[in-house]
Amino acid sequence: MKGHEGPGAAAPGHDGGLATEPAREPSAGAGLDPDDWSEFRALAHRMVDDVIEGMRTVRDRPVWQSVPADVLARLREAVPETAIGLDAAYDEFLRDIIRYPRGNTHPRFWGWVNGSGAPAGVLADFLASAMNPSVGGFENAATLVEEQVLDWLKAMLGYERCWSAVLTSGCSMSNLVALAVARSARAPVDIRRLGVAAAPRPLLAYASTEAHSSVQKAIELLGLGTEALRLIPVDRSFRLDVAALERAIASDRRAGGQPIVVIGNAGTVNTGAIDDLDRLADVCTSEGLWLHVDGAFGALAWLCPELRPQLRGLQRADSLAFDLHKWMYLPYDVGCVFVRDADAHRRTFSTTPTYLSGMRAGPASYGSSFADLGIELTRRFRALKVWMALKAHGVAGFERSIRDNVRQAARLASRIEASADLELAAPVALNVVCFRFVGEGGTAEELDRLNREVLVRLQTSGVAMPSHSVIGGSFVIRVAITNHRSRDDDFDALVVDVCRLGRELQTAYSQQP
Amino acid sequence: MKGHEGPGAAAPGHDGGLATEPAREPSAGAGLDPDDWSEFRALAHRMVDDVIEGMRTVRDRPVWQSVPADVLARLREAVPETAIGLDAAYDEFLRDIIRYPRGNTHPRFWGWVNGSGAPAGVLADFLASAMNPSVGGFENAATLVEEQVLDWLKAMLGYERCWSAVLTSGCSMSNLVALAVARSARAPVDIRRLGVAAAPRPLLAYASTEAHSSVQKAIELLGLGTEALRLIPVDRSFRLDVAALERAIASDRRAGGQPIVVIGNAGTVNTGAIDDLDRLADVCTSEGLWLHVDGAFGALAWLCPELRPQLRGLQRADSLAFDLHKWMYLPYDVGCVFVRDADAHRRTFSTTPTYLSGMRAGPASYGSSFADLGIELTRRFRALKVWMALKAHGVAGFERSIRDNVRQAARLASRIEASADLELAAPVALNVVCFRFVGEGGTAEELDRLNREVLVRLQTSGVAMPSHSVIGGSFVIRVAITNHRSRDDDFDALVVDVCRLGRELQTAYSQQP
Repeated sequence: MKGHEGPGAAAPGHDGGLATEPAREPSAGAGLDPDDWSEFRALAHRMVDDVIEGMRTVRDRPVWQSVPADVLARLREAVPETAIGLDAAYDEFLRDIIRYPRGNTHPRFWGWVNGSGAPAGVLADFLASAMNPSVGGFENAATLVEEQVLDWLKAMLGYERCWSAVLTSGCSMSNLVALAVARSARAPVDIRRLGVAAAPRPLLAYASTEAHSSVQKAIELLGLGTEALRLIPVDRSFRLDVAALERAIASDRRAGGQPIVVIGNAGTVNTGAIDDLDRLADVCTSEGLWLHVDGAFGALAWLCPELRPQLRGLQRADSLAFDLHKWMYLPYDVGCVFVRDADAHRRTFSTTPTYLSGMRAGPASYGSSFADLGIELTRRFRALKVWMALKAHGVAGFERSIRDNVRQAARLASRIEASADLELAAPVALNVVCFRFVGEGGTAEELDRLNREVLVRLQTSGVAMPSHSVIGGSFVIRVAITNHRSRDDDFDALVVDVCRLGRELQTAYSQQP
Repeated sequence: MKGHEGPGAAAPGHDGGLATEPAREPSAGAGLDPDDWSEFRALAHRMVDDVIEGMRTVRDRPVWQSVPADVLARLREAVPETAIGLDAAYDEFLRDIIRYPRGNTHPRFWGWVNGSGAPAGVLADFLASAMNPSVGGFENAATLVEEQVLDWLKAMLGYERCWSAVLTSGCSMSNLVALAVARSARAPVDIRRLGVAAAPRPLLAYASTEAHSSVQKAIELLGLGTEALRLIPVDRSFRLDVAALERAIASDRRAGGQPIVVIGNAGTVNTGAIDDLDRLADVCTSEGLWLHVDGAFGALAWLCPELRPQLRGLQRADSLAFDLHKWMYLPYDVGCVFVRDADAHRRTFSTTPTYLSGMRAGPASYGSSFADLGIELTRRFRALKVWMALKAHGVAGFERSIRDNVRQAARLASRIEASADLELAAPVALNVVCFRFVGEGGTAEELDRLNREVLVRLQTSGVAMPSHSVIGGSFVIRVAITNHRSRDDDFDALVVDVCRLGRELQTAYSQQP
């Protein structure tokens, strides 16, 4: 493929080049379109072969490897002023980029809470980029597909169709959108017009100490201030202590504050704990507060009927945030937010008075705009991968993978409990397993140092990619299973490797002077 | 392709199915991966052929068409509980979705400010979805590529490398991020901790009446309130009246307010006007205010040396927001924000104290996190399409297309001015042309009605897709050229069609009783 040189800057427009081009190429001559569509097509087919072979054989490669110095140097070179062509750019991609992935498509990646990327979603993302709509509303298939998948997601999670919903880039955004609506809906003044300072009393929010950092970021961004986010202690299962919440609300009211929202967790990032949503809903009902549920991955457990009792009360929330690129395994990015009060949702964000839409026909004559339901005006066609993956696999396909991950977590927890060398650090509610190597034991500092080193060696060897957390003051290895490629023997290999590394290190440390 | 049935829920894990599968399929049995990779590959190749043929021949199709009732009905069907398989899902995509696009990949789409989607970017987006990193930082190629393209973009726009920068989903997010930093940096209290209400005096922002709605949304979201956004009048070229700005700041200070930020436009959404950034920078320097520039599309004009005088002062801003899916023609979504004060940027968003990174090796040992520079924690690999397109085409390739769009806008304006039937509604600074049909003339209401109908007929006929605006109280047809596929004859066809439709309608209206 050539460098797409096209007509020069001084040429009198694209027409100038037409005479030398074949008649079958209606858009040839446009500088950023290929000069030769056959070459472009051949390259695209090569990419498909390379990428799919990579997906098929991912298990044979290390989960992760460090980026070598020569690659690092090339990825710090200056901006290319002149074209090298797409073929050459792809060669550089193969040399410098695809070999050094984050690792989360690998069956033994369980770090943080990253999804594994279902192949149907990857192809759908390609189709979405090719269609390239900005999904702001307007009559076209992308708008309709987003509306459809939002209705599907509501049905899948047991919500009424009349709820308002919008796709986002993930739960950081979904939490922010939901809390913005809560702020507008529950403040006693017109927050949009007058701002937070107009509230006669400080507006307060409540979440457990296990809440995700994005909740804090949202509260800060909304101008409420970190101090307005009251962090309530958790019980031994890492669930919000509801009695402590009630005491905090009462105390804050006495002190002149105005509680407006409680944020519950459906699957905490550290341990996967699920707050007692039903009791939180009771408290919010009696106190007149907004209940927002951060269900980043945990909300999807609703797809498995046997897990629903843990999520009881989920549909009593006023808003729900969850991701589809975590426990629905879709490629990044796609998250979602539901809001019960559709009017409050729109009133928080709309800058388009309904009476102004005004076209009798054409694309702009179609209904409402997604920009009126969130922060983004420009929006990628995220809905297509949801649509295509749900068509291809059915809800049942996702239910099976989620159930399997929960079973794998329980199975891993059993292995850990059965091992004399390992210690489970927290109850396993869903798909997150926190544990550490203990072996011959040692001081708190010794065990922290040892487990930190076990984790580094696991990660850098490319064998497996758990991440870590700190639970009860101890450094623990954390396995978050949102991976449709993991097999039981992957977890068995993890247990074997942690025990082997732990014993080796314990021996080595004991022999140090 | 089958429905990816995989092992049933009751099966004892994926291992159960291994005996019946060929040895060459290491991850077979995983329910969301294909049962048969060859079938999956064949389907992917079909998609590539279909999509590329669609790109090549886009000119031969209508820009837009209404979605028929039967398609609409199918796009409102209930969630698929069981799998139909990816082949069948793709057939439905071909029937119901790809035929009804928004239209912005078409050479005669000039509505709103939508990009045209450079093919190199489409392929890069496919590769990004296949790699599927969450680009939060950590040592892997995606982090390095984002760092590299941020440095490239700074170099391209004449900024110092020491500026802080991050990719976003678009300018709504970039404006919000930048204004959040401005709020933190210029408020006299710790806004993150104490919130907006702790400021002793109302925090005020200034923008012209032509500012984009996302600026208002950001101010509202930040808890400052719409009333804190002072809208300053514009001159006859739709540029912010700097003397009026100075008077407003002085008056607000006397009234006890605290001005903190001025938002300048580099390319307004209505007419493409560029504020006098140099004078705004002078005012901000002398008043101690933060200067944010919303350069959604206009900032990219810097790539053309002959356009730089219009943007003089661009690099004196404290922050800049711009998009790459508009005037850099890349597929949705990719925007960017620059911040001069890197510490202030990080202090606004960071929830990761540096001392906590703490791993001696492995992915988490690598430097800082993009989440510390914005709202999103989960971030798609947006950088890859920027990287690949800049490699393939060079900066020079984009410079050429931008220059061509500016030339086309000037040429269209000349045709409009040369036509007795048409009227230019605003000066053409860059790539936005607003005009209307006047013909035999008429009352303000008659001309509004007529131009509205001309636009609807243009759009619904599929011939061209301008959008509209209201300028000086009049409904105008608005052509925003961020399209690398447009040719001069496309604009000639537009002029011809507007004149034809205008005359037909004027005649028809004059014959009505």
